[in-house]
Amino acid sequence: MLFDPHVHTVGIGLSELRKMRESGVTEICNLSFYPIRPLFPQTLIDEFRRLEEFESFRCSLVGIKMFPAVGIHPRCIPPDYLTVIEHLEANDWVAFGEIGLETANEKERDVFRRHLEIAISKDIPCIIHTPSRNKREITEKTLEILKELDFPHELALIDHVNFENLDLVVKSGFWIGLTVQEGKLSAEEAAKIVREIGEERCIVNSDAGFGHGILDTVAQTAKILGIEAKKVCFDNAKKFLGV
Amino acid sequence: MLFDPHVHTVGIGLSELRKMRESGVTEICNLSFYPIRPLFPQTLIDEFRRLEEFESFRCSLVGIKMFPAVGIHPRCIPPDYLTVIEHLEANDWVAFGEIGLETANEKERDVFRRHLEIAISKDIPCIIHTPSRNKREITEKTLEILKELDFPHELALIDHVNFENLDLVVKSGFWIGLTVQEGKLSAEEAAKIVREIGEERCIVNSDAGFGHGILDTVAQTAKILGIEAKKVCFDNAKKFLGV
Repeated sequence: MLFDPHVHTVGIGLSELRKMRESGVTEICNLSFYPIRPLFPQTLIDEFRRLEEFESFRCSLVGIKMFPAVGIHPRCIPPDYLTVIEHLEANDWVAFGEIGLETANEKERDVFRRHLEIAISKDIPCIIHTPSRNKREITEKTLEILKELDFPHELALIDHVNFENLDLVVKSGFWIGLTVQEGKLSAEEAAKIVREIGEERCIVNSDAGFGHGILDTVAQTAKILGIEAKKVCFDNAKKFLGV
Repeated sequence: MLFDPHVHTVGIGLSELRKMRESGVTEICNLSFYPIRPLFPQTLIDEFRRLEEFESFRCSLVGIKMFPAVGIHPRCIPPDYLTVIEHLEANDWVAFGEIGLETANEKERDVFRRHLEIAISKDIPCIIHTPSRNKREITEKTLEILKELDFPHELALIDHVNFENLDLVVKSGFWIGLTVQEGKLSAEEAAKIVREIGEERCIVNSDAGFGHGILDTVAQTAKILGIEAKKVCFDNAKKFLGV
């Protein structure tokens, strides 16, 4: 039983979801992401419904229990994004994600901050992206905003952590997301990090979907970790998400 | 070289698209469909952009040339659908699809008719859905509307034709879409129809995507047909779409 807490099933076919299930993944968190910058905020509101209704159904077809995460990814902020923020404010959610900063411009910082404020008031766990480019610098800016808001440690997973920003995230006290995928960490690297810093706050995920085609990377990492996998490939994700 | 003119790549993963390419499919027409009924017309306008930009890019990654078809499927008509219609009217398109009737209620008929009127004025080929339920009755209503508008024969493909409505569509003079997929025609049945009625107006497709997981059904049918496949699995689709 594995829990993959960072997946984008929109972009994953049914036979691929079946392979993910066959690798041992029984539960996932499915994160909002629109693959182009939408022209309309309404598009994201419908995308959240698509996750909750249709993608949840598709996952159930292959025996995967899916938890939806909603929010505005920094690469797809629509015009009039306050319409989306108001929608997030007015409803209840399992988690926010994928949110965070890509270039840390003013608009991104505002969008990110608004999600975090809602998350604090409603006790919503947040899966927070760190970018490939300028990872260390953007992670610092991300952590600054979290600190300013006194964001609860147990409610934030800083994701796509690698050797560039690991020390910062370890020191921050937030959950540490280790993404095992082409162009990110290898399963061996993720296992090495878990063994070095301990399993208490690490959470392994695949970021599978769209461009990222390898579906069984949580299973690959679990295989290397053996008994240590229980926490970082299942228990910690459930604890973080409160599911 | 095969042309699959009815695919929904949103819902097909990259490894699956690769399998489609490996089966011999080099070109596809990718049809709009939103898997839940959108709450906003804007959602469909962004979906059309997603097809044209992102899905086209994904197909190019595996060596498939993609032509987008846009329009409002009868199962996902949003409120204020005239906003979408105006957007369709104001721009140029390769094709309209998937459009047509599901239950033939008044709203569906209006939406369908409005697409057809634009298609006539702009010379846009239309891929027209026929439903699983009440296929014969709904096909009759579909053909009635086409007749009322004196819709050009070369611009409409009546799709998902099977033994229930084959005679009606043959008599109508429009292109005959033979969808080879689980729950629709088998490759053997499609080949049988082509041999019985001739290859001049038949076009084989897969309707792959979302629930429909078999990706190589055009190739399966081509294998049975041999030399006859050239027209119904490639040339006719290109001629119909004008690409």
